[in-house]
Amino acid sequence: MGAMHILAVAGSLRADSINAAFCRAAARLAPPDLSIRVQRTLGSLPLFNADLESAPPHEVTALREAVGAADALIIASPEYAHGVSGVLKNALDWLVSYEGFVGKPVAVINTSPRAHHAYDSLLEVLRTMSATVVHQASITVPLLGSCPTEAEMITTAAIAQQIRGALLALGSALQSRSMVRPIFPMDPA
Amino acid sequence: MGAMHILAVAGSLRADSINAAFCRAAARLAPPDLSIRVQRTLGSLPLFNADLESAPPHEVTALREAVGAADALIIASPEYAHGVSGVLKNALDWLVSYEGFVGKPVAVINTSPRAHHAYDSLLEVLRTMSATVVHQASITVPLLGSCPTEAEMITTAAIAQQIRGALLALGSALQSRSMVRPIFPMDPA
Repeated sequence: MGAMHILAVAGSLRADSINAAFCRAAARLAPPDLSIRVQRTLGSLPLFNADLESAPPHEVTALREAVGAADALIIASPEYAHGVSGVLKNALDWLVSYEGFVGKPVAVINTSPRAHHAYDSLLEVLRTMSATVVHQASITVPLLGSCPTEAEMITTAAIAQQIRGALLALGSALQSRSMVRPIFPMDPA
Repeated sequence: MGAMHILAVAGSLRADSINAAFCRAAARLAPPDLSIRVQRTLGSLPLFNADLESAPPHEVTALREAVGAADALIIASPEYAHGVSGVLKNALDWLVSYEGFVGKPVAVINTSPRAHHAYDSLLEVLRTMSATVVHQASITVPLLGSCPTEAEMITTAAIAQQIRGALLALGSALQSRSMVRPIFPMDPA
């Protein structure tokens, strides 16, 4: 089995976003059988308008193609006012009608241990969109206030170990998924 | 006391949006002491980026000024995949740090009786942003599938009556609020 391709998505556009740093750190800590690419285009998506679905803007098509080509997604997003960031929800709104999202394995990372409203809302949205949330790989990492940079995440042993553990769990879930797929031919993945 | 100024905000950019039609219908059904203006610029807001807060884009400043000048907001928003629309959440993300939003009375309209996840999430976000949700004026109107246009909302007696009732309740809440304000000088409104 070749390397599995993972798309990592951060829900914040801040240059110093902890969630974006997490995505980059995960890409650097990935085991050899996982290839992680960080999606950097959420900020150039137009705001969702169902009237445009018949001829989606090219930024939307590009996002859908990247999602479709990935074996799984990693989503790391901040909580804004106890809700999912508008940036992330806007991207997801564009993926609701995209059939390539159905059954897509997703690891959901919570970088703010005190926050749970947005995390719970995000899980509800992902379930409604028929994603397959990979719970073994969906971790809460206490990064806010402790490890704000990619370099710190990689050099702090406890954090790096937690990230590596989540990636191993994701890889393992994908592998067993790929092995069972022929048994369940109706699986939308 | 002169007319109170209400800003009505729809969370969908669709041309035929039921929520936008609701906002227009409410503007036409408003009693003489309420002047309702429909905010039409959510689609031109940039995606939220906290790095831009030090010099907010002019669309953001214009939204903040419109919100600041209003005595209350009406928010009518669809549910997308059991979540608040990204369009609406993005606008709210830009208002989180705007002190003119604190204490702002908001009527939250649910036009899809079957939907409650997004409605509940939206209430949580508004509470977190220290808005004052006016529950007497926050109604669920069964518009989806029955009255999709502004004209139908106005000519369907039961619906028009429900909208008028919500607006009367909003006006009445604002009036009693304005009367008690001097007693509570610390009220952030």
